[in-house]
Amino acid sequence: MFRLSSPTVPRETVIRCALVGVGSVGQSLLRIIKQRAQVLREKHNIRYLFVLVSDSSGTLVSHHGLDVERILALKTGTGFDSENFDDFDTTSKHPLSTYKVSLSRDKKANVSDRDLSQIWFYPAGTSQTTAEIFLNDQILPAETFRNNFILFEATPVNHDGEPGLSTVKNAMERGAHIVLANKGPIAVGFRELQQKAKAKRVNLLYGATVCGGLPVLNIGRYDLSMAQFTEIRGVFNSTSNFILCEMGAGRTYEAALKEAQRRGIAETDPTLDVNGSDTASKLYILFSTVISSHLSLSDVEKEGITEITKEKIEEAKAAGKVYKLVASAVKRDNQGGEEKREEEGDKWELCVKVELLPKDDFLALCDGWQMGVEFHSDLFGSMYHKVDEREPTPTAAAMLRDALTICGNNNFSRRD
Amino acid sequence: MFRLSSPTVPRETVIRCALVGVGSVGQSLLRIIKQRAQVLREKHNIRYLFVLVSDSSGTLVSHHGLDVERILALKTGTGFDSENFDDFDTTSKHPLSTYKVSLSRDKKANVSDRDLSQIWFYPAGTSQTTAEIFLNDQILPAETFRNNFILFEATPVNHDGEPGLSTVKNAMERGAHIVLANKGPIAVGFRELQQKAKAKRVNLLYGATVCGGLPVLNIGRYDLSMAQFTEIRGVFNSTSNFILCEMGAGRTYEAALKEAQRRGIAETDPTLDVNGSDTASKLYILFSTVISSHLSLSDVEKEGITEITKEKIEEAKAAGKVYKLVASAVKRDNQGGEEKREEEGDKWELCVKVELLPKDDFLALCDGWQMGVEFHSDLFGSMYHKVDEREPTPTAAAMLRDALTICGNNNFSRRD
Repeated sequence: MFRLSSPTVPRETVIRCALVGVGSVGQSLLRIIKQRAQVLREKHNIRYLFVLVSDSSGTLVSHHGLDVERILALKTGTGFDSENFDDFDTTSKHPLSTYKVSLSRDKKANVSDRDLSQIWFYPAGTSQTTAEIFLNDQILPAETFRNNFILFEATPVNHDGEPGLSTVKNAMERGAHIVLANKGPIAVGFRELQQKAKAKRVNLLYGATVCGGLPVLNIGRYDLSMAQFTEIRGVFNSTSNFILCEMGAGRTYEAALKEAQRRGIAETDPTLDVNGSDTASKLYILFSTVISSHLSLSDVEKEGITEITKEKIEEAKAAGKVYKLVASAVKRDNQGGEEKREEEGDKWELCVKVELLPKDDFLALCDGWQMGVEFHSDLFGSMYHKVDEREPTPTAAAMLRDALTICGNNNFSRRD
Repeated sequence: MFRLSSPTVPRETVIRCALVGVGSVGQSLLRIIKQRAQVLREKHNIRYLFVLVSDSSGTLVSHHGLDVERILALKTGTGFDSENFDDFDTTSKHPLSTYKVSLSRDKKANVSDRDLSQIWFYPAGTSQTTAEIFLNDQILPAETFRNNFILFEATPVNHDGEPGLSTVKNAMERGAHIVLANKGPIAVGFRELQQKAKAKRVNLLYGATVCGGLPVLNIGRYDLSMAQFTEIRGVFNSTSNFILCEMGAGRTYEAALKEAQRRGIAETDPTLDVNGSDTASKLYILFSTVISSHLSLSDVEKEGITEITKEKIEEAKAAGKVYKLVASAVKRDNQGGEEKREEEGDKWELCVKVELLPKDDFLALCDGWQMGVEFHSDLFGSMYHKVDEREPTPTAAAMLRDALTICGNNNFSRRD
């Protein structure tokens, strides 16, 4: 029963991977994996081999593994030795499509014709979707998934969880383990995905979807696993938190939003952030993971920050208080209702609302860039966790953490 | 390589255990294990069977397992059905020695002579020490350790780590896994114990030794495992923190200490708390676990809080600042010293000192009962964790967390 006598990973295991979504988080993941290749090999005996990389322009596949550095260079338009690429269009809108061309022109890359002939690009729109490609065993034969395969999903959130949800389901169908940074699929399809993961005996991890790098799900699920929770509270959305903080400093809502957009925190369409939807999704994922999976996303009551005026904030300030968009899950008192056997989920109230907090409250002190969570339980009393996260690296690092967990290398009994 | 296909614990595994030290944390552990017996059985398929329990009065052994509830009742002098125990001296200073007597007088317990014949008590002083008993295969035959055995060590800290250190080493020698709440053995014998654990292929866990229930070691070691740390800071000692807070509220050092003792926070001899030793031990354990095991406890520079006067505190307060006893590990700048290949430990400065912090600093806001830690790293930015811990339950729950980890039931890949 003790893991010491049976190491789960033999020396240098190659883990085949797919990365779907090569935005800031996806790029950051590639960068970390590149940077930490030596540690991964020496400490964890692991090499991640990307055989599929997909962005909105299409899907790139190579069974020999794609060159991570080249993908990063193509996506960012930097990092090439210009002497080989002076006629190469790094401003292309479909950088992945030029991967093969760039490889064939790079004298240093030393690739054989055979390698080049086995690189395929499937343009979006004119070809199969990434989700379809995962089911296509001409493109991805069973062999690809045979030993170890991890899908990293980091596309933007949509209200219906798509196209991530289909990609994840199809990849699971083939036996891939899943690591999500995109909260859409898990918020929309929590139970369905959990069941499928169980049926297909694959791991489904999504630590990066709640509070980025802060290991909120691991703490709640593993470190506090024996506790009976009474309340969980959190500030989960940077955009609305930043706007409220800026308004506290005297800006109007509109000016604060504009500033958040200028700094790249807020989306061009910030609706999901400022109307409480993003916070509600994170609360639902956390609650379902740590406490009970019997509720649905629609059971979370929510409101946004758009009703909060500069005047209200100034009034609050004068009274030594601050407004925060707070997610909370509160266990209801059992009012003699013991006879009716309820599901655990039925005893809880989940909501996202703007709360007026004393200015030295833990969540009140979560500043613009910070996200925080409080766990209140019988065994562990009150615990507080927060992260100051100004860029996508911690979220990408949380994806790598989950990937190591899948590889059996991040569990508590592991010995260095 | 994926744990799903090979569950590590079969249905209802009996884990033989020893509890050495039945003070407030030890009692709390027994209470939690008793309370959560059903969850442990149904969710984790585990039953903990205590075959040895030891306190300062001596060591009680029964291979059939000791009655946890009875031990708690004997230790606290409560909980007996008085009708059977009206002549039973619950105020005995050596409650464990009366375990057998109490059992034989309890008609309800229905114990056979054979069971009773296998309960032994070895009084302290006149008999073998607990450490010696662990090596004695007349008392604890090899069979006892054959499958699963966990030693829970929760005796008070001594500067030389004893007698815990010997008990732990001897138990490891027999193949026991170790869960510590007593930081003495691990602070004094970090490398020796790690090496022995490796050689004997047993787990050595001690999450309860730093910040009680707050999973500081798990977060640093597993959740942030890929990060390169630049700094770790913390407030780790409740007694000195409480005294500083009380002094901030106008009390003198002496009055504050007296109040801490009255409330049961401070020891009768609070030296190790107020001179920084306790904080230094915790910092050393955390650093050695998370960053490098190349330093020794004596490498931690330390000072205590005894030089802080009421006047200094009032001055600080007027300037919007507070004094805190802060543990810090800071990575030195590499001043062109790259050529000399240093051990990781050599690049760090560890110290415990009274720092003057802005009053809204994270550690400044760790109040009397709270302990907190900050992790600063390249991948995860800045992370802050704190716990509000007013009684021994969270520390005991942290021991149970480690025990579940040893049983393979608390790892990240586990499926409910």
